[in-house]
Amino acid sequence: MDVITVIRTKRDRGRLSDEQIDWVVDAYTRGVVADEQMSALAMAILLNGMDRAEIARWTAAMIDSGERMDFSSLARPTADKHSTGGVGDKITLPLAPLVAACGAAVPQLSGRGLGHTGGTLDKLESIPGWRASLSTEEMLAVLGDTGAVICAAGDGLAPADKKLYALRDVTGTVEAIPLIASSIMSKKIAEGTGSLVLDVKVGSGAFMKSLADARELAATMVGLGTDHGVRTVALLTDMSVPLGLTAGNALEVRESVEVLAGGGPADVVELTLALAREMLAAAGLPDADPAKSLADGSAMDVWRRMIRAQGGDPDAALPTSREQHVIAAPATGVLTALDAYAVGVAAWRLGAGRARKEDSVQAGAGVEWHARPGDHVQEGTPLLTLHTDTPEKFPYAQEALEGAFSVSPEPTAFTAGPIVLDRIA
Amino acid sequence: MDVITVIRTKRDRGRLSDEQIDWVVDAYTRGVVADEQMSALAMAILLNGMDRAEIARWTAAMIDSGERMDFSSLARPTADKHSTGGVGDKITLPLAPLVAACGAAVPQLSGRGLGHTGGTLDKLESIPGWRASLSTEEMLAVLGDTGAVICAAGDGLAPADKKLYALRDVTGTVEAIPLIASSIMSKKIAEGTGSLVLDVKVGSGAFMKSLADARELAATMVGLGTDHGVRTVALLTDMSVPLGLTAGNALEVRESVEVLAGGGPADVVELTLALAREMLAAAGLPDADPAKSLADGSAMDVWRRMIRAQGGDPDAALPTSREQHVIAAPATGVLTALDAYAVGVAAWRLGAGRARKEDSVQAGAGVEWHARPGDHVQEGTPLLTLHTDTPEKFPYAQEALEGAFSVSPEPTAFTAGPIVLDRIA
Repeated sequence: MDVITVIRTKRDRGRLSDEQIDWVVDAYTRGVVADEQMSALAMAILLNGMDRAEIARWTAAMIDSGERMDFSSLARPTADKHSTGGVGDKITLPLAPLVAACGAAVPQLSGRGLGHTGGTLDKLESIPGWRASLSTEEMLAVLGDTGAVICAAGDGLAPADKKLYALRDVTGTVEAIPLIASSIMSKKIAEGTGSLVLDVKVGSGAFMKSLADARELAATMVGLGTDHGVRTVALLTDMSVPLGLTAGNALEVRESVEVLAGGGPADVVELTLALAREMLAAAGLPDADPAKSLADGSAMDVWRRMIRAQGGDPDAALPTSREQHVIAAPATGVLTALDAYAVGVAAWRLGAGRARKEDSVQAGAGVEWHARPGDHVQEGTPLLTLHTDTPEKFPYAQEALEGAFSVSPEPTAFTAGPIVLDRIA
Repeated sequence: MDVITVIRTKRDRGRLSDEQIDWVVDAYTRGVVADEQMSALAMAILLNGMDRAEIARWTAAMIDSGERMDFSSLARPTADKHSTGGVGDKITLPLAPLVAACGAAVPQLSGRGLGHTGGTLDKLESIPGWRASLSTEEMLAVLGDTGAVICAAGDGLAPADKKLYALRDVTGTVEAIPLIASSIMSKKIAEGTGSLVLDVKVGSGAFMKSLADARELAATMVGLGTDHGVRTVALLTDMSVPLGLTAGNALEVRESVEVLAGGGPADVVELTLALAREMLAAAGLPDADPAKSLADGSAMDVWRRMIRAQGGDPDAALPTSREQHVIAAPATGVLTALDAYAVGVAAWRLGAGRARKEDSVQAGAGVEWHARPGDHVQEGTPLLTLHTDTPEKFPYAQEALEGAFSVSPEPTAFTAGPIVLDRIA
């Protein structure tokens, strides 16, 4: 087997054989295939595609590169959720304890933010004392005790994907549907969840800008999950407008706690409940009522136990930024647009995200918006508040937000679309 | 400037700006852009192409990555030739002294073989004592004294190309017309020749398999040379059948000396003279008669002086292989095919070429064929002789030659085509 032949096969629009895929994934994991060879192959895959059978084999090879976890000893059925990444997407935080409160076990192995989208672990780390890294035993203990755990995936899970993901990130090869699908699904299948709900984001703030691309990605992932015995459902959800009213780390934790307390922005509540219902149905608990568990405080109870089990203090004050800058509404009327990508980039530039994996994030940094599209705003009153510990970043954040919002004097200029655009099972 | 934006631009079928090209070539040379990033970009260029202006700028950036040579102090006009690489292509060996004998100066900076095509320096190194590496002063002295020099290009010439060529070789990104054209022309323009004749090979034994691809490559290179003030002409020549009667190192030196002595295979003589006439015309010496310089021994005189000036003994016995294996003609009739690629791979496997840059070659190894397509052969008499010091390689060479030749009992089954297929100026 030789890597140049594998690269040329895909470069010349051929199919990779099962043997070629098994060999190249294993050889890359072992360092026999070099980074510069894998990146050339990744670019060829991005431009020339892979068929369903190739993607399935590639995913299986990445699963086989590491260990698999097993939750069959738990008394409850397991349910997991994965979002393809958006702006202000804090849904995992209220969702995991909510679904646990309804009777499922939720082993949520999560990642960190990279680029303009935030990361669940970065957000939770703004809670004083909270630890993302758990041993497998610790993870199972938290899951068994509280019903939910949100933590970092161990190094043993799909190591081929870890290496390839870092490579794609620096070589312009992130946006390939076969590679996105196999990356997500290899981790989720190796993790051993019984059911999985995918939140596939569509719009300016998502990696998939078009509904057609998002649908293809969703169908590919649902097929992969189903083939590996994981009950998998995908919701396609809108990411042209950021979720809720905040994008940042501590800012989003605060908003999540509001949702768990029975309040919070309507769109966050709506999407949390929609995903909870899908997870509970996939886990064989279709009669559970997540709205009730939000209202009666049982989801909040799980949240508090879960945070405490990982060293966090759910009652501690959350960090705030040292400096704020207010952007006022430019006119009186209806807010007709607030671009998710621009808000994500602004939050990232303010310090909520990182440029390189080695960087740290600011717990208090981010963007807060005081109206959502469709809301009435008054000229001169605060429309956005920028938060950072490094005020020299304000101009760069403001630059990102130029042209990102608009206000119309016409009262009928805006009709909000649905959050859930499609469902693929 | 950021490399991921550059990669994405070409990935998404955009044009690279002048600033992007200058930056990425320079940053790669300095090690700021990593190999895995450049290989992803090279694959995107291979699959999505570059327009003429992009190729011109890329070539200029590679020239600017190093030093430039200057032959303006020489009394004679300079003429150089470059072949895109074929099997049995020993033409540089008789051609350089021949053109020098006709009055031009021939500074022939050459390379080593890689893959199934041989390298001029590897061939000449089979002459006892001959040295490929000369300082710039030594090179100019040999050129001034004898009229011709064949030596290795110094490290200072187009270092960006040296690095990129080695990368392309291991990442399946060799066969990109923009990258081939800019690689060849950056070296030749930096070398400072006044005129250049390109021998663009077409057919199974060449990198360009189709006439259309070869024509595009030739036109691109002629345009680049002309834009940089180098009088440039390209001949498209047939490489479906190997040149002459030998492929190897010492084997090809022997055949070249036969041509310089006024003999040698007709096709080698024909192509040598065709290229010599183009070089002399481009150098402003259209009235020179290269056929006369072959016949009267003046080309041989230059050869002997040139070899001696680089430490070689033109009268020394050439090395021969320790073992030979004969393949007999399978039938009586006309040889109708002898595939250039198969012969090249067989010679390479016998030890004439190298698998990795670090490998050494066998001086005596290679393939000799005793008939050319169109010749009559007798069943059971020698058709090919394989030469090697490592006889365990015979089966692999024989495997490469399976189906590579055929003999037809019909006397009219074969009509030889012309060697020169087209001319682009």
